Amino acid sequence: MSQLPAILSRLDADLDTSLARLSSWLEIPSIGTDPAFDTDTRRAAEWLRSDLEGLGFKAELRETGGHPVVLAHRPKPGAPHALFYGHYDVQPVDPLDLWANDPFKPVVKEIEPGRKAILARGACDDKGQVMTFVEAMRATLAETGDLPIGLTILVEGEEESGSVNLPGFIKANAAELKADFAMVCDTGMWDRVTPLITSTLRGMVYQEVRLTAADRDLHSGLFGGAAANPIHVLTKIIAEIHDEAGRITIPAFYDGVHEPTNAQKAEWADLNLTEKEFLGQVGLKHSVGERGRMLIEQIQSRPTCDVNGIWGGYTGEGSKTVIAAKASAKVSFRLVGDQDPAKIAAAFHQFVRERLPEDVTAEFIGHAGSPALAVPVDSPVLQKARKALAEEWGGRVVSIGSGGSIPVGGDFKRTLGLDTLFVGFGLDDDRVHSPNEKYDLSSFHKGQRSWARILRALAS
Amino acid sequence: MSQLPAILSRLDADLDTSLARLSSWLEIPSIGTDPAFDTDTRRAAEWLRSDLEGLGFKAELRETGGHPVVLAHRPKPGAPHALFYGHYDVQPVDPLDLWANDPFKPVVKEIEPGRKAILARGACDDKGQVMTFVEAMRATLAETGDLPIGLTILVEGEEESGSVNLPGFIKANAAELKADFAMVCDTGMWDRVTPLITSTLRGMVYQEVRLTAADRDLHSGLFGGAAANPIHVLTKIIAEIHDEAGRITIPAFYDGVHEPTNAQKAEWADLNLTEKEFLGQVGLKHSVGERGRMLIEQIQSRPTCDVNGIWGGYTGEGSKTVIAAKASAKVSFRLVGDQDPAKIAAAFHQFVRERLPEDVTAEFIGHAGSPALAVPVDSPVLQKARKALAEEWGGRVVSIGSGGSIPVGGDFKRTLGLDTLFVGFGLDDDRVHSPNEKYDLSSFHKGQRSWARILRALAS
Repeated sequence: MSQLPAILSRLDADLDTSLARLSSWLEIPSIGTDPAFDTDTRRAAEWLRSDLEGLGFKAELRETGGHPVVLAHRPKPGAPHALFYGHYDVQPVDPLDLWANDPFKPVVKEIEPGRKAILARGACDDKGQVMTFVEAMRATLAETGDLPIGLTILVEGEEESGSVNLPGFIKANAAELKADFAMVCDTGMWDRVTPLITSTLRGMVYQEVRLTAADRDLHSGLFGGAAANPIHVLTKIIAEIHDEAGRITIPAFYDGVHEPTNAQKAEWADLNLTEKEFLGQVGLKHSVGERGRMLIEQIQSRPTCDVNGIWGGYTGEGSKTVIAAKASAKVSFRLVGDQDPAKIAAAFHQFVRERLPEDVTAEFIGHAGSPALAVPVDSPVLQKARKALAEEWGGRVVSIGSGGSIPVGGDFKRTLGLDTLFVGFGLDDDRVHSPNEKYDLSSFHKGQRSWARILRALAS
Repeated sequence: MSQLPAILSRLDADLDTSLARLSSWLEIPSIGTDPAFDTDTRRAAEWLRSDLEGLGFKAELRETGGHPVVLAHRPKPGAPHALFYGHYDVQPVDPLDLWANDPFKPVVKEIEPGRKAILARGACDDKGQVMTFVEAMRATLAETGDLPIGLTILVEGEEESGSVNLPGFIKANAAELKADFAMVCDTGMWDRVTPLITSTLRGMVYQEVRLTAADRDLHSGLFGGAAANPIHVLTKIIAEIHDEAGRITIPAFYDGVHEPTNAQKAEWADLNLTEKEFLGQVGLKHSVGERGRMLIEQIQSRPTCDVNGIWGGYTGEGSKTVIAAKASAKVSFRLVGDQDPAKIAAAFHQFVRERLPEDVTAEFIGHAGSPALAVPVDSPVLQKARKALAEEWGGRVVSIGSGGSIPVGGDFKRTLGLDTLFVGFGLDDDRVHSPNEKYDLSSFHKGQRSWARILRALAS
């Protein structure tokens, strides 16, 4: 334990060097969704493999149906063993003209007085986050010649493409991935000075519905007033999904949703998330969520439904007097607690079918389905991590749910039986997936220090 | 009058020649909406101008802001004077691979036993229809050396582009276009053996509505459950436009809609238009129109609302968990009686605005607005035309409303003070605007004979 101050001092002293290392990784345009960048994407994997090898890991690129997984092992017999997850692929960069700098020529600059950040695609999501962990290992090794726990590092290249090959890879290599717990560094802080351990992640059901009425597009002058219009049918169905109180009306939808404890409610109230603060940043004023629920509960711990896309008929310039034959929508549900994705999908199909006039038929395409994930917040691993974070950041650590879905946590749980520690240092204004993505230097630096502390804490 | 049999015999004898003339006009790809065909479109205008000049008309191409108008005069002092309208532009031809022949290489073939047609883009809409009138004039001139009435021929090249320059042209040339009545040949028959005089045309209000919520697209994992989703708002508004009985709920929408007379109802009942016959042809079974109204009333004499297009959010392959910033729809209303397009548009705006949550704003773009048009069915012109048609087709002539909108009739009425005789020989299965457009030879041939009879009848 007495080695920790030296490790932290080394991280402080090496910040510029670690930034330079991150920059050289960020310079590789690993846009995994675009085949034109396949060579670069593999180069980014190789960059990390080589770096991990330099830290004494047995590190390989392992082939999947798509981009390779960087898999690295550094066992430590007798010590706890952790499986660390991140991803080396990044989002596409368009629209390019909205970037202040070349997204693959990282720039460090002061974004407001006293606040510096590194700007590049992937600066936060997820290269910057992964490197907080790698730098913590590097400094620990440099000072102590060893790591406090055994580690398997799994960094994939398809997170931005829906991790299509990852569940299969985890299944096929379950024995090799054996560990005591998992750690994922792909989440955010509560605010710039308060770390966050994500305690729950919402699940997801994503369904595309396609309605068909007539066997061709019709002229509204000839058929208007008689022919079923699938856009009308679709809008009516969507309009009925929510009631006036913001609740979802699909029968049995709330089965498996648990009410929060009083302690949970008190913690939420204490966080005091306001509409002005949260919605104000995107130009909105009022939550449209379930009446009688705190805003933070609405976005993190309640199930929701959003139509993510809708289309039908004529959508070009000007006017066309058509009654479309088809109308479609993409509808997603965020799940919590023990909601069952298969039952929710079936209930949605039934909800739609019951509302179809005789002349209209529906087809469904299921795009995703995963249950919600809860982390046992009282587990020793989380308690140790919480204490380590508190020491680094000055006391307060928030442990709440995330509204998003990180399916890999579910795969670790179901396939490997592992609980996951979700710790990350992203901020709300990091613009991940958007132009001018950045990662605060405080996130990068104190993130490294946080992991150094957590690694040591987990060994005890 | 004794000259009529000779004129009709000549039309019978000259059918192949007249078909050859129509073919040579159809070969000119006058796709007025596509600038790549501008030269061809003008060539089609010139083809007609030249043909009319050959019939003794003073015929010119008159420039507009777009494609020229073919304008031709053949006055006859002391006789009634008619203004005849048609159009020489045609619809685009895609998807080209669905055509059985090159759309601009007309083919005459037997489409079912005993039924021949000419297949080409524009065969019906509107070159074939225009030529029924021109051939009737040609035969009359050949047999008698004169025409029974004075005529002005106005054939435009922008009907398929919304006739954007026509109202201005009519206004600017009102004195020159002076006539006793107008005739339009761009409508259909009741069925293959029953001619139709269109007695009313529905008006139109076409509005595009664009809703905006947040100032950017949002991640549904972060904001789902709180942020207003403009697709939800739009679908809810659209769902509320119709009530359970198929009526439109916009306040004062039905102001100016008149109930049919008992005579009108009896005529409709006599036509016995069934759902099976009308909707069956497009794969539908049941009318979704206003309860308690006959099908024919729903599609021709009642006002309607159809959403012609809707779009918002992610509409590509797969899934994207976005809450869109914007959602849009194109909404059209067919008007009847004395409904006021400006009032309907304003009432629709109000209807939408009243349903917007505080965080959502609406913009509107008006694409068209024209009142309904009624033809005085008891006028001498219509009575004479009806008698002439009855003589040609064997007795039965239907005179009912059309569900469509032909704005030029309104311009003739408002700007020139003229009532219009709408007679045409299109059939429901002519596939106008679609691949494999055709015009039955019976339409083409008996259409010519019909006009020859009408021309003589109108002189009396």
